Amino acid sequence: MRRFEPNDFTTNRNGQAIRTCQFSRQTLAGKQNSVTYRWDTIAIAGVGLIGGSIGLAALERQLARRIIGIGRHPQKLEQAQALGAITDFATNLEDGVAEAQLIIICTPVRFIAQQVCQALAVSNGDAIVTDAGSTKQQIIDQVHQQAGEAAERFVGSHPLAGSEKSGAEHAVANLFLNRSVIVTPTSATNKIAQQQTIEFWQQLGSRTHLMTPAEHDQILAATSHLPHLLASVLAAATPDAALPFVSTGWLDTTRVAAGDPELWTQILQQNQTEVRQSLSHFQSVLEQFSQALDQDQWETLAQILALGKTQRDALGS
Amino acid sequence: MRRFEPNDFTTNRNGQAIRTCQFSRQTLAGKQNSVTYRWDTIAIAGVGLIGGSIGLAALERQLARRIIGIGRHPQKLEQAQALGAITDFATNLEDGVAEAQLIIICTPVRFIAQQVCQALAVSNGDAIVTDAGSTKQQIIDQVHQQAGEAAERFVGSHPLAGSEKSGAEHAVANLFLNRSVIVTPTSATNKIAQQQTIEFWQQLGSRTHLMTPAEHDQILAATSHLPHLLASVLAAATPDAALPFVSTGWLDTTRVAAGDPELWTQILQQNQTEVRQSLSHFQSVLEQFSQALDQDQWETLAQILALGKTQRDALGS
Repeated sequence: MRRFEPNDFTTNRNGQAIRTCQFSRQTLAGKQNSVTYRWDTIAIAGVGLIGGSIGLAALERQLARRIIGIGRHPQKLEQAQALGAITDFATNLEDGVAEAQLIIICTPVRFIAQQVCQALAVSNGDAIVTDAGSTKQQIIDQVHQQAGEAAERFVGSHPLAGSEKSGAEHAVANLFLNRSVIVTPTSATNKIAQQQTIEFWQQLGSRTHLMTPAEHDQILAATSHLPHLLASVLAAATPDAALPFVSTGWLDTTRVAAGDPELWTQILQQNQTEVRQSLSHFQSVLEQFSQALDQDQWETLAQILALGKTQRDALGS
Repeated sequence: MRRFEPNDFTTNRNGQAIRTCQFSRQTLAGKQNSVTYRWDTIAIAGVGLIGGSIGLAALERQLARRIIGIGRHPQKLEQAQALGAITDFATNLEDGVAEAQLIIICTPVRFIAQQVCQALAVSNGDAIVTDAGSTKQQIIDQVHQQAGEAAERFVGSHPLAGSEKSGAEHAVANLFLNRSVIVTPTSATNKIAQQQTIEFWQQLGSRTHLMTPAEHDQILAATSHLPHLLASVLAAATPDAALPFVSTGWLDTTRVAAGDPELWTQILQQNQTEVRQSLSHFQSVLEQFSQALDQDQWETLAQILALGKTQRDALGS
């Protein structure tokens, strides 16, 4: 059982403010419990659905003595603290990461590279920095260009978990359980940092997969970015008169269109080349389908439907 | 509490075989209960997900004394009987509908018109025939052409409920609860038949909507047939290498692609003109999106995503 005591303030080694809470564990018998933590301090920048779920999972699994949430809004961080997603918080990246051994950047993709660089610059020389961004190549290129040698301590990650919902209030401790996390080291990545990042995701219950950043972006264009843009275009193209009559089919097919347009614009922008490739391939199959429909080629049309069913059935419900 | 007794055989007024079971109701106190049923006999041709769910719902709501399931496979009908979806069955349409006051054709769309005509021809002169087909105009045109005056007793229906699953084993009594059923009478439709069909769906817990067959087909092209074809094409177009990395987004967006390719080919064939219109409109919005992506018009792209989100959010999760 975890119990949060009233908040108080401590200062870190640089004398900067981290708002913290007494953090104690009790056994069911009520005795004070002594736990050996894998990490003393983890910092999470961006405590939304993903960052909050990482915090919840890491605390539930007793992976860290303290988790410092970093964000702009103290009120939201207080909420995340109350939910048990973080033990402490800071509204400033420097303050939040200074004492962390593991720093996870969970902000929208267009902020990630800059914050990774900042975290590498101000953290301990052996701290590991990773992220949870939906794109990889552009972020990693930018970190390598700007962070110099320190870039070896950055290990790109992408947990394939999430939801069209956002915010720490939707965070759940089992978000990563049995889900895939793609880890994208480069030849410059420190092997220890890489190994410890992989172990961290595995300790949250995830399966890890190693890929190059380019492979990651190509695969995610097909599995996530293209489905998102199609769902959005379908929802946008549905005539007003038809909306009252949608059923489960339309609702399933368009579900991800409820995602944040600003976040998704950033993702599509960062992965522009691969998304274009993927969209262009989709358009060519759609064109075959469309021609079959126009020209009464019902056999061809049935074959495309059958291939779609085979691919879909292979992946469960 | 409903109890099924061992099956036995009776004959209908024409001396034809209907396999039936003793059907008795007991109150919780164990007393034999006398129920006044809205319908004595309902016949359901095609006892799959939709037909089976109609049977379950009608029996649960005590709308009929007996429900005769009609199909080609006695084994499947026995299963549906064991599940409580029908009380009796026949493997021949004539035998099954002869004594029914309400006949519901729930077979794949390409069989509906022919079976409606057959049911109109061999049933009592005041029996009502309806269907559950996903398309309406072509079916109704064909019935009017072939059934002559008897066509006045046919009232086209389409319950907007279903699933990518099929078969009576997936039938559920609440499939129609709070769901929409579109009823598509024509100027030739008998007003009493129309009213009784509407009441039947309402008694299953559905909201009914009146439309012309053409309006129905136009709306369904946008809300159901287009989403289905896009989901199928997306699933078919996903490269094999990407499939192991799909997440909830892809799974939601492609869920309906698991539907039966043969059934869906029939639906797209029957609603060819409206599906082409709907697909063409979708393709024009997709083309705008694609151009915005190619030409770095992130504002335009964000606007389409935002419109998609607004339309999706309005319809719940």
